[in-house]
Amino acid sequence: MLALLSFLLVLSTAPPSLCDRPPFRVIHLLRPQTGSSDGPNVHGLSCLSWRLAVETDNIRDWDTVPMECEAYVGNYMLGHQYRKDSAAVADEAIAYAKGLEVGRDGKDVWVFDIDETSLSNLPYYAKHGFGAEAYNSTSFNAWVLEGKQPALPETLRLYKEVLRLGIKVVFITGRTKDQTRVTGANLKNVGFHTWIKLILKGSSDSGKTAVVYKSERRTKLVESGYRIVGNIGDQWSDLLGTNTGNRTFKLPDPMYYIS
Amino acid sequence: MLALLSFLLVLSTAPPSLCDRPPFRVIHLLRPQTGSSDGPNVHGLSCLSWRLAVETDNIRDWDTVPMECEAYVGNYMLGHQYRKDSAAVADEAIAYAKGLEVGRDGKDVWVFDIDETSLSNLPYYAKHGFGAEAYNSTSFNAWVLEGKQPALPETLRLYKEVLRLGIKVVFITGRTKDQTRVTGANLKNVGFHTWIKLILKGSSDSGKTAVVYKSERRTKLVESGYRIVGNIGDQWSDLLGTNTGNRTFKLPDPMYYIS
Repeated sequence: MLALLSFLLVLSTAPPSLCDRPPFRVIHLLRPQTGSSDGPNVHGLSCLSWRLAVETDNIRDWDTVPMECEAYVGNYMLGHQYRKDSAAVADEAIAYAKGLEVGRDGKDVWVFDIDETSLSNLPYYAKHGFGAEAYNSTSFNAWVLEGKQPALPETLRLYKEVLRLGIKVVFITGRTKDQTRVTGANLKNVGFHTWIKLILKGSSDSGKTAVVYKSERRTKLVESGYRIVGNIGDQWSDLLGTNTGNRTFKLPDPMYYIS
Repeated sequence: MLALLSFLLVLSTAPPSLCDRPPFRVIHLLRPQTGSSDGPNVHGLSCLSWRLAVETDNIRDWDTVPMECEAYVGNYMLGHQYRKDSAAVADEAIAYAKGLEVGRDGKDVWVFDIDETSLSNLPYYAKHGFGAEAYNSTSFNAWVLEGKQPALPETLRLYKEVLRLGIKVVFITGRTKDQTRVTGANLKNVGFHTWIKLILKGSSDSGKTAVVYKSERRTKLVESGYRIVGNIGDQWSDLLGTNTGNRTFKLPDPMYYIS
């Protein structure tokens, strides 16, 4: 009884700093092989502030999630908030799409990024420190080649609505052309059944930043007569540059940064 | 003892949804005159997700804070997280500024917005629903004319560092020229002692969006030979448009939206 009372007391007076305290249970189940720091602060700042600064493009060109925030980011990604935050973006994008007057010429397109936008690498990152471990292209590409990425449910919801409204879908991804087959199959397997273009990096694109590569491909689309009415991605490099689209939508991603 | 144990138990297993639960004590002390909804959700979405979507420019052109989120926003603004989030932005801006090679010609400038960037209107908004009440220009302007706005401490910290590095300061604000004297006096009173330009809206600017007005003024600066090395504001309309500066910094502001 005393315990219940104090539990309710804590619930009703919980200070905001509680938000910085990740529960570690779920994460430890997923990756018992390594320890994870329980520090909610990085260089004296809360991981919550770090994440907001990342999402608003204030912190740029970062390599890995700060070690102190590994458990925090893991908790965010595996908990309810990542899904809720993604739903808020999808809701807004759908409301915007519904307000469009879609042309009858089939030239209105919506650009979708793939990784952490349409397909989720969370099963991979849950085993690799949620972005706190240095990126390993060998193991990551092996994971991609398995073709077992789940859909991001909120993006799939937007995708279906976009198609229903008569807007065409274009995927532009930083993946390379040798991954075309597995990427297309993975997309179809999880519900992204149709598109007019699936654009991957060619050999002439190697070394280009995502901003440059994606801007070039969007510009080609526009020069071909397409109108980019919407553009959604988890990286600012999906959404900045030229011909970004009439409106852009930024999905959350505190796990990695691509310039 | 039992109570202490269960308190610790709750602390260590607090679910993320706790973050949506605002404690109302502080807010009620400030505005006992009106009731405030305790719903952490708006149209089924968490207020935390609403705020993130606002800060990332996914939700645009909104008039007021959703009624359901008034207490949540109030709690955020009056609690520790607003300050922490602002500190993360200031830290990043200072690190960036320190890495600059400042020219000896005195032409490197940093653009500061004023309201909710350099000076805080929180004492006003705490009495007006933290943005949940419709904007009232009469009462707001009366408040501004009192000239009693406190400095935002994290921005003041950045300001001092910018000056120390030899970068000049330019203020560009959506306030109108009739407020020049009170604005300058207020800035000086709270620690912003010097600037090379304090730019306010003239009569020819009325009706222009903030993006257009601020872009025009920044362009004039650049045409006069100034180099905008940094630009900080609480609104995306401070940071988008033309000649935005070599790098922009977005401070949090969940209370209002200016296009």
